Amino acid sequence: MDAAEFRRRGKEMVDYIADYLEQIEKRQVYPDVEPGYLRPLIPDSAPEEPERFEDILQDVERVIMPGVTHWHSPYFFAYFPTASSFPALLADMLSGGIGCIGFSWASSPACTELETVMLDWLGKMINLPPQFLAGKDGEGGGVIQESFSQATLVALLAARTKAIHRVQREKRELTQGEIIGRLVAYTSDQAHFSVEKAGLIAGVKIKEVPTDDKFAVRGSALRKILDQDKAAGLIPFFFCATLGTTTCCSFDKLPELGPMCNAENIWMHIDAAYAGSSFICPEFRHLLNGVEFADSFNFNPHKWLLVNFDCSTMWVKKRTDLTCAFKIDPVYLKHDHQESGLITDYRHWQIPLGRRFRSLKMWFVFRMYGVKGLQEYIRKHVKLAHEFKDLVLQDDRFEICADVVLGLVCFRLKGTNELNEALLKSINNARKIHLVPCRLKGKFVLRFSICARTAESAHVQFAWKHIVMLASELLKAQKQQQ
Amino acid sequence: MDAAEFRRRGKEMVDYIADYLEQIEKRQVYPDVEPGYLRPLIPDSAPEEPERFEDILQDVERVIMPGVTHWHSPYFFAYFPTASSFPALLADMLSGGIGCIGFSWASSPACTELETVMLDWLGKMINLPPQFLAGKDGEGGGVIQESFSQATLVALLAARTKAIHRVQREKRELTQGEIIGRLVAYTSDQAHFSVEKAGLIAGVKIKEVPTDDKFAVRGSALRKILDQDKAAGLIPFFFCATLGTTTCCSFDKLPELGPMCNAENIWMHIDAAYAGSSFICPEFRHLLNGVEFADSFNFNPHKWLLVNFDCSTMWVKKRTDLTCAFKIDPVYLKHDHQESGLITDYRHWQIPLGRRFRSLKMWFVFRMYGVKGLQEYIRKHVKLAHEFKDLVLQDDRFEICADVVLGLVCFRLKGTNELNEALLKSINNARKIHLVPCRLKGKFVLRFSICARTAESAHVQFAWKHIVMLASELLKAQKQQQ
Repeated sequence: MDAAEFRRRGKEMVDYIADYLEQIEKRQVYPDVEPGYLRPLIPDSAPEEPERFEDILQDVERVIMPGVTHWHSPYFFAYFPTASSFPALLADMLSGGIGCIGFSWASSPACTELETVMLDWLGKMINLPPQFLAGKDGEGGGVIQESFSQATLVALLAARTKAIHRVQREKRELTQGEIIGRLVAYTSDQAHFSVEKAGLIAGVKIKEVPTDDKFAVRGSALRKILDQDKAAGLIPFFFCATLGTTTCCSFDKLPELGPMCNAENIWMHIDAAYAGSSFICPEFRHLLNGVEFADSFNFNPHKWLLVNFDCSTMWVKKRTDLTCAFKIDPVYLKHDHQESGLITDYRHWQIPLGRRFRSLKMWFVFRMYGVKGLQEYIRKHVKLAHEFKDLVLQDDRFEICADVVLGLVCFRLKGTNELNEALLKSINNARKIHLVPCRLKGKFVLRFSICARTAESAHVQFAWKHIVMLASELLKAQKQQQ
Repeated sequence: MDAAEFRRRGKEMVDYIADYLEQIEKRQVYPDVEPGYLRPLIPDSAPEEPERFEDILQDVERVIMPGVTHWHSPYFFAYFPTASSFPALLADMLSGGIGCIGFSWASSPACTELETVMLDWLGKMINLPPQFLAGKDGEGGGVIQESFSQATLVALLAARTKAIHRVQREKRELTQGEIIGRLVAYTSDQAHFSVEKAGLIAGVKIKEVPTDDKFAVRGSALRKILDQDKAAGLIPFFFCATLGTTTCCSFDKLPELGPMCNAENIWMHIDAAYAGSSFICPEFRHLLNGVEFADSFNFNPHKWLLVNFDCSTMWVKKRTDLTCAFKIDPVYLKHDHQESGLITDYRHWQIPLGRRFRSLKMWFVFRMYGVKGLQEYIRKHVKLAHEFKDLVLQDDRFEICADVVLGLVCFRLKGTNELNEALLKSINNARKIHLVPCRLKGKFVLRFSICARTAESAHVQFAWKHIVMLASELLKAQKQQQ
């Protein structure tokens, strides 16, 4: 395929994608396929000779689409949103076309520099304290990670290195292994499992801090566990706070937790993967109060800020905390400006070496929507979630299980877990909408998450009517059995 | 921007990318910008109101392009190649359009299943032993990692878990921390720095095994260090072999190392990041002999197999080795088929949770090139490297510093390191071609790596003439100073 054919096929692909997204409502949101469906549909080895593009595009409909969960269908209310916008798609095409690998400043200066400035733009949009910004000569700054799980891991590893150095200065008799054995990190009992996974990887203990009746970690709860652990000879070194938990979008109390972490030499990392995008709206910014106590902060514009996956933005107050944990410089990556102090080699900020030109997506999206356009988008989703909550509240067979703050509604039928599991099964089996559950203090709960960019009131109303119908059927069947 | 505007702008973008790639030779391969060049060129915060696409596209030329290192210029001979092909660009557009997140089978079955089958296709293309393939019910299988550094880390962590479990069974008196403190991993003194970084992350010792005069790890060298370490009470558990080192494309002796690793319960991981793609050609497949002893194997189709970044393919003989190291299952990710044994939830195979639909790129590239087309492409690059090597050998002021096996030529002026550093500086300052150096047994060496898909004999000939001219100037100036 040469450039001329790419021009033709690329334009066909643009139309295919536009058609797909324009007509996505007509596709069944969750597929019917069974495990192993795909293998028999295609040959069992690669062809020796080239095939025609037409045949491949036909196979997309025959082989791929029947097995796709359509995350951008307005009937998709599962997990959390994943971003999709046209400006981001355009920028990603450009990023692919340029195809540079930005592991060092020299490997493509624009790739590094646009990222640093875009992280400053976004930091200002959410009113981050200036220590988190790179500016011209700041000590902090931002980086795009592939995912918030990587951001959590990077923060944990940086904190581990810092803690080891500190303890080594204070207690010279301890070996590094002994120190690691005593280190202990904390997170909410509602935190995402990736925090536990980061602990597994780093080889340090992670303890869950119990949450209050709003599913939030309070200062008192952390205080209690800290005191116990210190008395037992452990060394607390890391706390991962969550703003907008995956289960129910609850918020840990940063203003209580932050000063305690600072006083105890505990690195406070904030995971606001989903909720972070909302902080661009002044009315939601208060949810971030206390960030000034944090060492690192992360959220995913690829969730709710219209910047397609992958774009997980992370800021630190001291960039040397990251680079100290990871910096290894072989000759083949050295370059003239390296020791100038002027540049950023992002490979020292992350787990992998290579990286794509991801900041183009942020640049395109921020400019084509404008901050106002992005705020409107967030507000629309929050409004739809409240619309759904109000519908639930009007039916006294149902209950709301957690405060509705942003775009997630946790609800259930008043009744047993089995009943609610049956309801979810019946909803997902009907294939009209797609939801996933969570468990809140032992209760099986349904999560209704506003996800698609194109979700409107009509979709929410449809979803609720559909849920009510299935619930009524279920309750009726249950009554008949009794 | 709605779908209608996306149709128009998307097509403009396709043309922009086609123009860029068709005319890339006219652009200066390495940019002139100084650190900090970009910040003053754009506003210091995001716009409130939406901007026009035309203005953004103009800014790509004004702001971005002057700071891009053009990896796909045929005058780019630095690092190793990074893939760029039109079929991969098309597939990546589609992947962005679908925009699903494939962390579990249920989150988009097609995303998981195509990946499993594509890894089988590619495994067959390089004639991997069948234990590495998933097939319908195999114990092994493949996964796409973001980068080979992640693959190395994942293998190291899986090996660590396995070793801890084994030692705990044998020596019940040791705590997990004590075991980790005794674990020791090995790799070549020529290995990529990411192996050392993986050790830092996992908190285990990594030792370098000295290489022979061909820059290869031999069985005898590993034997010696193993015996020493075991005598000292350490527990060897992991060896990362390299096929095609970053410095000079040397190959560790798998047939000597593999049986030793197997006998000693040492996980053998193979990093063939660059060289792996060549194994699709029967004449290079012998370089992979000994893979049958490995536990995991990895290479980067995004380097040399025309599948754009990111696509780092990794295979394991026992998939449970990976899942045991990482598996944590929260309620919100559970799905009906999870415990059926029929499906793959790739989040247990990797560090991050989220993942894009990357296997589409493999499918498009393999089908549109065919195996024959891909083989031709590899052979062309190897031929060009040999052409360059022959040119070097004809000028007795120069020497070849390592065997030329694939597309990399390591060469230098006979003389001091300072002289060669000056030559490299002069080459890169002239901005006609771009190279990076390496260090081989204390010698400063220039690496000439065939990178661009469009590199031809004419570019190699031009590069050599240019190098000779600069070298002659340098030698003349040096003589005059004496």
